Amino acid sequence: MAKEKKAPRPRAQTPKGFRDYFGTEVTERAHMLHTIAGVYHRYGFEALESSAVETVEALGKFLPDVDRPNEGVFAWEDDDDGWVALRYDLTAPLARVYAQHRNDLPTPYRRYAMGPVWRNEKPGPGRFRQFYQCDADTVGAPSVAADAEICAMLSDTLEEVGIPRGDYLVRVNNRKVLNGVLETMGLSDDAQQQAVLRTIDKFDKVGESGVRELLGKGRLDASGAYIDGVGLSDDQAAPVLAFLTSKGTDAGATLANLRAAIGGSAIGAEGVDELEQIATLLDAGGYGSTRIEIDPSVVRGLGYYTGPVFEAELTFEILDEKGRKRQFGSVSGGGRYDDLVKRFTGQSVPATGVSIGVDRLLAALRAKGRIGGTAQGPVVVTVMDKDRMADYQAMVAELRNAGIRAEVYLGNPKNFGNQLKYADKRESPVAVIEGGDEKDRGVVQIKDLILGAKLAQSASLEEWKERPSQYEVPRDQLVAKVREILSQWA
Amino acid sequence: MAKEKKAPRPRAQTPKGFRDYFGTEVTERAHMLHTIAGVYHRYGFEALESSAVETVEALGKFLPDVDRPNEGVFAWEDDDDGWVALRYDLTAPLARVYAQHRNDLPTPYRRYAMGPVWRNEKPGPGRFRQFYQCDADTVGAPSVAADAEICAMLSDTLEEVGIPRGDYLVRVNNRKVLNGVLETMGLSDDAQQQAVLRTIDKFDKVGESGVRELLGKGRLDASGAYIDGVGLSDDQAAPVLAFLTSKGTDAGATLANLRAAIGGSAIGAEGVDELEQIATLLDAGGYGSTRIEIDPSVVRGLGYYTGPVFEAELTFEILDEKGRKRQFGSVSGGGRYDDLVKRFTGQSVPATGVSIGVDRLLAALRAKGRIGGTAQGPVVVTVMDKDRMADYQAMVAELRNAGIRAEVYLGNPKNFGNQLKYADKRESPVAVIEGGDEKDRGVVQIKDLILGAKLAQSASLEEWKERPSQYEVPRDQLVAKVREILSQWA
Repeated sequence: MAKEKKAPRPRAQTPKGFRDYFGTEVTERAHMLHTIAGVYHRYGFEALESSAVETVEALGKFLPDVDRPNEGVFAWEDDDDGWVALRYDLTAPLARVYAQHRNDLPTPYRRYAMGPVWRNEKPGPGRFRQFYQCDADTVGAPSVAADAEICAMLSDTLEEVGIPRGDYLVRVNNRKVLNGVLETMGLSDDAQQQAVLRTIDKFDKVGESGVRELLGKGRLDASGAYIDGVGLSDDQAAPVLAFLTSKGTDAGATLANLRAAIGGSAIGAEGVDELEQIATLLDAGGYGSTRIEIDPSVVRGLGYYTGPVFEAELTFEILDEKGRKRQFGSVSGGGRYDDLVKRFTGQSVPATGVSIGVDRLLAALRAKGRIGGTAQGPVVVTVMDKDRMADYQAMVAELRNAGIRAEVYLGNPKNFGNQLKYADKRESPVAVIEGGDEKDRGVVQIKDLILGAKLAQSASLEEWKERPSQYEVPRDQLVAKVREILSQWA
Repeated sequence: MAKEKKAPRPRAQTPKGFRDYFGTEVTERAHMLHTIAGVYHRYGFEALESSAVETVEALGKFLPDVDRPNEGVFAWEDDDDGWVALRYDLTAPLARVYAQHRNDLPTPYRRYAMGPVWRNEKPGPGRFRQFYQCDADTVGAPSVAADAEICAMLSDTLEEVGIPRGDYLVRVNNRKVLNGVLETMGLSDDAQQQAVLRTIDKFDKVGESGVRELLGKGRLDASGAYIDGVGLSDDQAAPVLAFLTSKGTDAGATLANLRAAIGGSAIGAEGVDELEQIATLLDAGGYGSTRIEIDPSVVRGLGYYTGPVFEAELTFEILDEKGRKRQFGSVSGGGRYDDLVKRFTGQSVPATGVSIGVDRLLAALRAKGRIGGTAQGPVVVTVMDKDRMADYQAMVAELRNAGIRAEVYLGNPKNFGNQLKYADKRESPVAVIEGGDEKDRGVVQIKDLILGAKLAQSASLEEWKERPSQYEVPRDQLVAKVREILSQWA
């Protein structure tokens, strides 16, 4: 008879594209979300938390056209609701929430939401299938004052999380201006319009001359492959290039250039007027061009949004993984999308909003050394005599009641060296020692571990022998002495 | 030819068993999680955030024995990882994380985690398929000092979130004592042991006499159905009842009763010793029996855990949905589980921890009126002249820069009544008005909406006419006057 096979042990492994976050990675993010929520709240936005799971029908973008509709989303079939999926952003759920609860919500409805979203995409370096978004949207406000407000709030938010003025720029563009340009060009063919939109999207990468080639005959790309062009003449392409490069020395010059680029288009003029109103409103609020500027070279999202679009960029340089200097780039984007609620209700509802990439913003602050480093660990009360655990617990209770982070060593206390190694691994600033001798004399030993580590690196034997990093104090001065040492390293 | 059918509009509906959380529901929970994290941190615990998605293999409890292994969990098949699922608690992921990262983690490893978990169960009133948990666990510490620490931390946490001493009790029991009782009874038959465990679990509901009947011949339940008993004689059942009812007037009396109940069992004696050590450690830390007590009637989780078990109960009464008084009951539970990591590594790793039901705790604080009520809305700057939006934006910018929550009205400003209705819906404390006349005279009107509402309810016509709830102040005193009004209602 064949021997029964023993079940193999399960692998202890996160699914591909997912990861665990430890310690300060978690608390720094929580702190940032808390700060951002504070700004959003001050602007009158209300918190909303919808569930992670939505019906595929409500999410909309990924309706099932095959048996398994999991293109881009994580989806499964539920007994009660048919196909459901994890949300892939926070905007699609907002449209569902607004449609579902619109009779109870104020109009306009300002809301913010923060939390993980999930994408069923191939993971890559730094790209995960679960990541945080932090959104603010105003639903039901047609006025560009709502867009201007979002831009001002984005600017305030960046400063409040630690990006100083000058290190960021919120850039604003408008889809309607581009529509005006397309109208002026006489491009009525939808396929050709789409081709122009796709080309504009490459402006960031290939620049003005690249876009000119791609709008015309085509272009050899860096890999040597030939990319077919849209086939416009130079004259036809001129308005697009005029649009993309119309940024002047100030908002007035930019707006004048844009008016030239749109020719006689009515929708284009509406777009330029909107940008002008936004600039005026922001100036009145103290958000001048060092913080927010009109910039027609913002092309990300022009295909998706219906009116103003915004992008926040960090303007300082960091070193990339290969040690090359590069600008940090975009940390946030948004714009006006006026048709999202209509899917549900049939009525058009104007909406505008922004999404902040919290994880990218944290990476930026880390790259600049503004957060990160190692957080201070707890004071460790060592265990010299395991029958006196109650004494040690009383010590940590005293320290904690004084607001000091502290713990008693809970591993096997036999080997004292292991206890100090543990304190080291925990980045503990202070260790407390009370052996039988100390107990009898009513004292405790307090080791300043940070000073100890410094001495170990640089002190002479003489200095070392004097052990100036360890203090003996009466038991009732435990809290005071620990506090004194901590205050030196705060 | 048949007319093409128009696609029906999607339903704007959360999936069954899920819900949306608005405004203070979100911020009060965030505030509570922040407070709890602060206590956990002070105790030396480190934050951990694992992903919502785990392989079904790693989650373990729900291995696929059918084509679709979604009993109790939300699971789907992934191209890369086979069956994956949403986590159903925070303990199973901890075991996976510890096994995966154990070489980089300190031992013992104290960690806390907070976030949503998902259960694929039939939803009911107040029971949702996504809810928050907030856990703290110590992995790698065999000593009951770790269990005592968890109990102390639980007590501190409850007080810090707003449950005063006297309104809660942390109750501690020990599975080993029960094992000793079963040993004394000579119950070696596994099926009979399981039947006794299941019966003990009903002690909360049916009380001493009910358990006696169920351990013996059986019992008529409230619905009139007859429940078969385990079939023990009264003599055999006696030790179980002695165990369950062994709580004395103080810890010493309880422990003495327990020693009697376990007879000569070695494992039972170990359990009683552990409870005694826990009581001693907690006393030393200042956690006397008004906060934490040994209570052998704690039966929840006795089947699941391997050593000490704990439960936090709120002892005050609330009115249930039918207006009847009842004790609020349990908000947290935990205990020692020593074999969870072993599945992955083959090595036994001792662990103990606690889970706080954050949503239940919030419900308790709301029932006591300690949180909730309506949060104050923003100051609303009304729009009297839509061409002067920049003026109004400048006002809100001033107010926000002074730290005051404020917004400009972004709906259609034509109907002023709608603006005040909006302010009312937003629970705004103050509305600001600046029409053309005020602009010319360099003043603004400031309406105290809270006082206005009070007057509207109770004032005489004379009082009302004097309009004492509206003030005219110079434009440059806007912030000062708003702050003065807000300070009265803070």
